[in-house]
Amino acid sequence: MAGKEEVAFLGPIASYTHQAALIHFPSPHYTIVPQTTIADVFAAVQSGAVSQGVVPFENSSNGSVIFTLDLFADLAGRNPDILVCGEVYLGVHHCLLGRSKAAPEGQDGTARTTVEDVSGVSSRETSRAKPSRNLKHITKLYSHHQAWGQCNDFLTTHLNGIERIDVSSTSKAAEIVRQDDSGCSAAISSRMAGELNGLEFLAENLEDNEGNSTRFLVLRRRDDGTSRPDGSAGAADGEAETDGDHSRYKTLVSFTVRHSEPGDLAGRLAVFQKFGLNLTSINSRPSNEATWHYIFFVEIMGRKRRDGSGAVNQALQQLDGVAQSWRWLGSWENALKA
Amino acid sequence: MAGKEEVAFLGPIASYTHQAALIHFPSPHYTIVPQTTIADVFAAVQSGAVSQGVVPFENSSNGSVIFTLDLFADLAGRNPDILVCGEVYLGVHHCLLGRSKAAPEGQDGTARTTVEDVSGVSSRETSRAKPSRNLKHITKLYSHHQAWGQCNDFLTTHLNGIERIDVSSTSKAAEIVRQDDSGCSAAISSRMAGELNGLEFLAENLEDNEGNSTRFLVLRRRDDGTSRPDGSAGAADGEAETDGDHSRYKTLVSFTVRHSEPGDLAGRLAVFQKFGLNLTSINSRPSNEATWHYIFFVEIMGRKRRDGSGAVNQALQQLDGVAQSWRWLGSWENALKA
Repeated sequence: MAGKEEVAFLGPIASYTHQAALIHFPSPHYTIVPQTTIADVFAAVQSGAVSQGVVPFENSSNGSVIFTLDLFADLAGRNPDILVCGEVYLGVHHCLLGRSKAAPEGQDGTARTTVEDVSGVSSRETSRAKPSRNLKHITKLYSHHQAWGQCNDFLTTHLNGIERIDVSSTSKAAEIVRQDDSGCSAAISSRMAGELNGLEFLAENLEDNEGNSTRFLVLRRRDDGTSRPDGSAGAADGEAETDGDHSRYKTLVSFTVRHSEPGDLAGRLAVFQKFGLNLTSINSRPSNEATWHYIFFVEIMGRKRRDGSGAVNQALQQLDGVAQSWRWLGSWENALKA
Repeated sequence: MAGKEEVAFLGPIASYTHQAALIHFPSPHYTIVPQTTIADVFAAVQSGAVSQGVVPFENSSNGSVIFTLDLFADLAGRNPDILVCGEVYLGVHHCLLGRSKAAPEGQDGTARTTVEDVSGVSSRETSRAKPSRNLKHITKLYSHHQAWGQCNDFLTTHLNGIERIDVSSTSKAAEIVRQDDSGCSAAISSRMAGELNGLEFLAENLEDNEGNSTRFLVLRRRDDGTSRPDGSAGAADGEAETDGDHSRYKTLVSFTVRHSEPGDLAGRLAVFQKFGLNLTSINSRPSNEATWHYIFFVEIMGRKRRDGSGAVNQALQQLDGVAQSWRWLGSWENALKA
């Protein structure tokens, strides 16, 4: 690959994924390119149009990003060569972006649609964040679906019953609000998106949990064969170095199980335990092979090594003998500070 | 409890949960009462205001209902006595409900907001369902968040780029559309909600997968002490009958693990394998005890017996010795036809 390497990220510009991409690929060696959907990032990496991609994987408050899991499940067989080669943790701090100008009531003819909180899971009566401006004129909220769940307290306390419109990203939400001249709409989005769109900060740090963070995964093609300046993928894929310390690396594996067989799922998982590998997360998604069949995603500490040695390699070899189908989805350097 | 037993369900009237409740509680012995949120159903059962409750648990296309999982996780300690005592499987067939009258273009002043499909996971170019009416006048779609993902093909093919508004339930969506005189909005909702609201069926069977189904759980209070006409809870909680056939029952257990200890999660799961219990599903959610800590939900075939005998009881006893914290969330009769 001559010249600058291209890296795809879930856009648009100023999305949280963009910020994660800038952290992982800060050098002038990279051109980073926004994509509209998570599927587009996978496709760009799979086709070789870009050398790497960045997608959201899980949020500390909301849990997994199911779209990303479904793309790793790859039921349509579109992304057979995608591997994870890195991760980025980003503190996520949402702002309420809009205009402080109050439009005269009823002027825009918008009816207030009551959108009830279907979860009611929030445990606090009031939110951490306080608005810095009056919010009485706000009749419409735009954001990404994941953001509502992260700002439950603020929304319940200060914007209860206001119509919420899901858009493809928090930065898209800010763009829509910039284009709305009524001044009655607001976006839950990032500081970067607020600055880019010249919007006012009506409130900051809307998130329920101060530690609200999102983990992003860096994707590459299985056979890209390039040496990476950060060295992570090369090392994780099996350089001949010792790695007694499993906690330096992580590995993602997916598999399906035969539902008819007692202990089948537990049996697959016992394989990892047998080799002393720490299972750090399990997720399941409908496999769509049949109704109520699942595909499981297991993350373990440690890495698959190119030379075939090591505990992860041995565990995967045993999995080969017992799982209905399974796939190694990559090994990479652990970016979480203990 | 004198007179009719009261059963709470996630409402409003004509919701899919309502239909599930009518299947499980068909007799005149029950008064079934709609609740606004899943949390309200849990609260009504916990407080004893009703004897049982019905909540959605998972959809065959979309996966788990995370709000329900979070209420079982019960991090705020509000639902300590909730147990699952039954389940209902319901085929879910969505209709597009609205009016076929086309409003003159631009009359309602609504701007078409482009809402992109962030997932792009759908694998088909066209949808199974065909509209029976022209849909050109539709500028706004209302539904529950879960429904969008189940109707991806239809939405992409016939209503691409139309503004989508999340509301608390599919039946609420139908109610909103009934009240919109412009005729430009449509709801994705059930046949029952369409009939109740006197709306036209613009298209039927919108769901991508013909087998689209939702599983609902029936909740009761741990100490309700009543004998149930369907006998399920009584039996599952340990009547002195033999149950060599584990597949007749299911059990739900939640637990957290120590992340520092290698093989900790696999070790918990191995307990079930040791006693020959089939793990049928695993889910995880953020535990919110600390960032990136999880609570796991495991479903196994078999039941906890009141007399303390049997494989499930033995497994739970061993779990007691090794898990950081765990909770038996109920045993009930398996309603899935093999």
